[in-house]
Amino acid sequence: MQDISPFKTASQRKADRIAKREAVLRSAVRMFNDRGFHATSLDDVAAALGISKRTIYHYLASKDQVLLECMTIGLQQLLQAAGEARSEAGTGRERLIKFLRRYAEINMAEFGRCVIRTGEEALSKESLPQYRILKRDIDAAMRQMLSEAVADGSIAPIDVKIAAFTLAGALNWPGRWYAPDGVQTAQQIAASMVELLMRGIDAR
Amino acid sequence: MQDISPFKTASQRKADRIAKREAVLRSAVRMFNDRGFHATSLDDVAAALGISKRTIYHYLASKDQVLLECMTIGLQQLLQAAGEARSEAGTGRERLIKFLRRYAEINMAEFGRCVIRTGEEALSKESLPQYRILKRDIDAAMRQMLSEAVADGSIAPIDVKIAAFTLAGALNWPGRWYAPDGVQTAQQIAASMVELLMRGIDAR
Repeated sequence: MQDISPFKTASQRKADRIAKREAVLRSAVRMFNDRGFHATSLDDVAAALGISKRTIYHYLASKDQVLLECMTIGLQQLLQAAGEARSEAGTGRERLIKFLRRYAEINMAEFGRCVIRTGEEALSKESLPQYRILKRDIDAAMRQMLSEAVADGSIAPIDVKIAAFTLAGALNWPGRWYAPDGVQTAQQIAASMVELLMRGIDAR
Repeated sequence: MQDISPFKTASQRKADRIAKREAVLRSAVRMFNDRGFHATSLDDVAAALGISKRTIYHYLASKDQVLLECMTIGLQQLLQAAGEARSEAGTGRERLIKFLRRYAEINMAEFGRCVIRTGEEALSKESLPQYRILKRDIDAAMRQMLSEAVADGSIAPIDVKIAAFTLAGALNWPGRWYAPDGVQTAQQIAASMVELLMRGIDAR
């Protein structure tokens, strides 16, 4: 039996580092969403965690990298939602609905909101390509799922490109207006919006 | 008959002042949309007009006031579109469609794009109330038109609040992605999006 050591093992140190990096990102994303990216300094983020800005630089190179990481987390949550929905059984329409609901919910959660609220102009030239590749992949996944649902006849034959933009826009916008302390939960709002988009507002 | 005077009359001076103020706003809004509000200085705006920043201060007090004015123009265009659509003959549905198309088109035009792209966080505390009153009035107009269309039976009985957020989101988002040099005109995009939102994407 080993003695209990006050020194961390390599794997403990690695887990510790990841947890601290995540804490910085979580603190930063809240401030970006509340005050705006430009009105937030890394000093503010550090102060909220009771650390110094120098300590942040141990985990993340710059405010630009902090933003890129926050946006990447939000965008990867959307991509993951697409992957999960596509791997489900059911019609194209059923998979699409599952994806659209998760898409809206993620845009009302912290990292998704940051993607919507901050906008690509805030990123440096160096960070833009990573952001744009993720955005393009999400748009491609949305169009793919729409095409599959058209192909199996479970939704109407629509212009997939316009539909992807329209759905994405409608379900991105809660990232701007959603208030976590509102009457309806993100899940309820997402379900209502997706239902409306699926059936439209014309009388029938 | 009067001699031709090299001095401007009071009304000429006033018109001149309005034209110059508008030129500053038009130059500013283009830069805000292209580079982002935070990456644009009033020096850049002045340089584009071949004037100095001091000259801009003759017409507008600060960069914050420039932004507020740009956003106010965009938001008032939306309010005007609502007023015009509501004064038309026809069913509630017909008036709603007219408004929604104009709403999308304005969001693809310069001042509308600025409202969407910049976001309220960029405004000072002093400027926020004016912005929020206009946003609230537009939301109220959207809900009113939806309610009227539900009341006269020309659209389905829907949750007007959720519908207003969903429609606004879908039709705000082109302010982010629309490229004026694209294949489709703003009018074509607006018409396709509104048609999709009206009839939904479910098979029928």
